[in-house]
Amino acid sequence: MRPTARFQEFSVHPVLPWQQPICAPSEPHRQQALARQRQLTKPAGSLGRLESLAVTLASLQHSDTPAADRISIAVFAGDHGVCAEGISAFPQAVTGQMIANFVAGGAAISVMARHLGATLDVINLGTATPPPTSDGVVDETIAAGTANLAREAAMSPAQLEQALAAGDRAAQRAADQQAQLFIGGEMGIGNTTSASAVACALLAEPAVALAGPGTGLDADGISHKVTVIERALARHGDNREPLAVLASLGGFEIAALTGAIIGCAVRGIPVLVDGFIVTVAALAAVQLRPELRDWLLFAHHSREPGHTRLLNVLDAEPVLNLSMRLGEGSGAAVAVPVIRSACALHNGMATFADAGVNSAE
Amino acid sequence: MRPTARFQEFSVHPVLPWQQPICAPSEPHRQQALARQRQLTKPAGSLGRLESLAVTLASLQHSDTPAADRISIAVFAGDHGVCAEGISAFPQAVTGQMIANFVAGGAAISVMARHLGATLDVINLGTATPPPTSDGVVDETIAAGTANLAREAAMSPAQLEQALAAGDRAAQRAADQQAQLFIGGEMGIGNTTSASAVACALLAEPAVALAGPGTGLDADGISHKVTVIERALARHGDNREPLAVLASLGGFEIAALTGAIIGCAVRGIPVLVDGFIVTVAALAAVQLRPELRDWLLFAHHSREPGHTRLLNVLDAEPVLNLSMRLGEGSGAAVAVPVIRSACALHNGMATFADAGVNSAE
Repeated sequence: MRPTARFQEFSVHPVLPWQQPICAPSEPHRQQALARQRQLTKPAGSLGRLESLAVTLASLQHSDTPAADRISIAVFAGDHGVCAEGISAFPQAVTGQMIANFVAGGAAISVMARHLGATLDVINLGTATPPPTSDGVVDETIAAGTANLAREAAMSPAQLEQALAAGDRAAQRAADQQAQLFIGGEMGIGNTTSASAVACALLAEPAVALAGPGTGLDADGISHKVTVIERALARHGDNREPLAVLASLGGFEIAALTGAIIGCAVRGIPVLVDGFIVTVAALAAVQLRPELRDWLLFAHHSREPGHTRLLNVLDAEPVLNLSMRLGEGSGAAVAVPVIRSACALHNGMATFADAGVNSAE
Repeated sequence: MRPTARFQEFSVHPVLPWQQPICAPSEPHRQQALARQRQLTKPAGSLGRLESLAVTLASLQHSDTPAADRISIAVFAGDHGVCAEGISAFPQAVTGQMIANFVAGGAAISVMARHLGATLDVINLGTATPPPTSDGVVDETIAAGTANLAREAAMSPAQLEQALAAGDRAAQRAADQQAQLFIGGEMGIGNTTSASAVACALLAEPAVALAGPGTGLDADGISHKVTVIERALARHGDNREPLAVLASLGGFEIAALTGAIIGCAVRGIPVLVDGFIVTVAALAAVQLRPELRDWLLFAHHSREPGHTRLLNVLDAEPVLNLSMRLGEGSGAAVAVPVIRSACALHNGMATFADAGVNSAE
């Protein structure tokens, strides 16, 4: 068994990408957007969440006309050694097969990317069975999946660093595309087991509080998954330091998401957080860099039961609640049009003065 | 005081538009859509509400490829005599001013109609102060607002019939446009008072159970509004027949919405129901013609507190909950892209067989 990673090893680097300063939102733009909302031809506050979404985006984008036209989606895929414990309803080969489906355009996130006119990066961090095609896939292979986290650390410190850096590079590509919003998605058979274990370690919760059906376990399956996670947590011990937790219990795609989220906040790109797994990656990111919380918008409330606890911890109020539990970034993609509507209304409505309409008496 | 309308008067007509047979959804298309959802490359059920929305639309549209590309929005506007009781935060002149704002493109629903590529009909059923412009407005004037429902019947049976027919004509225009989805909206200073009174009479509830702040009353304002509604309900008596209730306590725009909703179900056009006021009109329509319930999709959960009770009565699970309370059909418009995403996913995703992906073990 490898020892739990010790992250003083990172201190040999001068400044790693995820240690750069986080951008600051603009308070003047926030105030200006609030003032504009009060002047638009509607009862004050009557657009509800659409008002706060537009105001938040104005502040993050340092803009009078918040926008979500240019969207960068990055789906991170990787396999999980913990599949050896029989914790998923799907065979492990599906991770590689779905990578091919992402680039071929047949997966949910592929359809949504086209529908939104968003860019879609598919990033392979390492699968047990190679994808049938690598055309159009960003190759960031670290290993043929993680080690079995129920028995040993999922990855080495060097592998964790590779995964974080792969996420940071995705954030850089989003910056190069002048993305107004970043969506991270994930694919990896077994990754709700890994994500639940990470969340349990970060929050000092027992497995039963956060484990759920994932892609479709029944009650017996969930109960077995809880046992596997408890074994992993017992092996891992009490270390709650986020990088140590990610290396010990995480997945390559989860760590990459943490790197991407930090990388976006460093570069001033708002992040639209998807469901359970991406929220776990966001939790690790916020624990590492609390000031990046401002950069996170939460897209939807997943049906995976542990998501509720994570959203509460992060004080997050998601835009949608559609009982989705697919992953891939699909829930975030479905929330994009709500944010676009918020921007259209903020930028396009007439003021009381412009329209010659009396305001409230 | 006029007596409460007696609706045997309608029996002189042979078959009124709102007495035509309601279209039947297609069970074969529903089954086919359900089967397709099970074959798409995702865990079964993992798209949550998006799956049921696509399946419902396939069944209503008798189509293998449900769609919400062509949207007809009709905003019905009218004034309310009950404004004499001081029940609104806005002056009554705003109804006419907002009609002008709708056609000029500055109101929330105007912005959303452009954003969605939807048609927008603005229908004037009668205002106390004429709108500053009538260009582009569909003139269906019945009177310069309703009578004061706290003191007498809001409208005569003949006026109710005019309002229902105006709604039916809007449904016919939607049919002429081959609309795949109809949205009705409303504008009328004072109309949450009227809508609450109608709902109380239809459901035999006290005013306090359904009255809320509307465009922005404080606690004293709500308490006064409750008193006014109680006076109206005492005058009205126990008659729960929906047409009698609409004439006694309704508004021209509320009755027109009821007519439009029935007219859509008669013509096979699915209706995306907006917030509190449109839901009251839908409740009256469902009580008149229970079989039309199938044709109603519910867009959002309004912040107006009475909406929760109405949604429960109609067994309705809205798509969104964004704390909106603006009216105009704006909440329904914001829900359209979710339905479009549901259709894009249903029609565009690959099946397990097509993509060479293994399904669950």
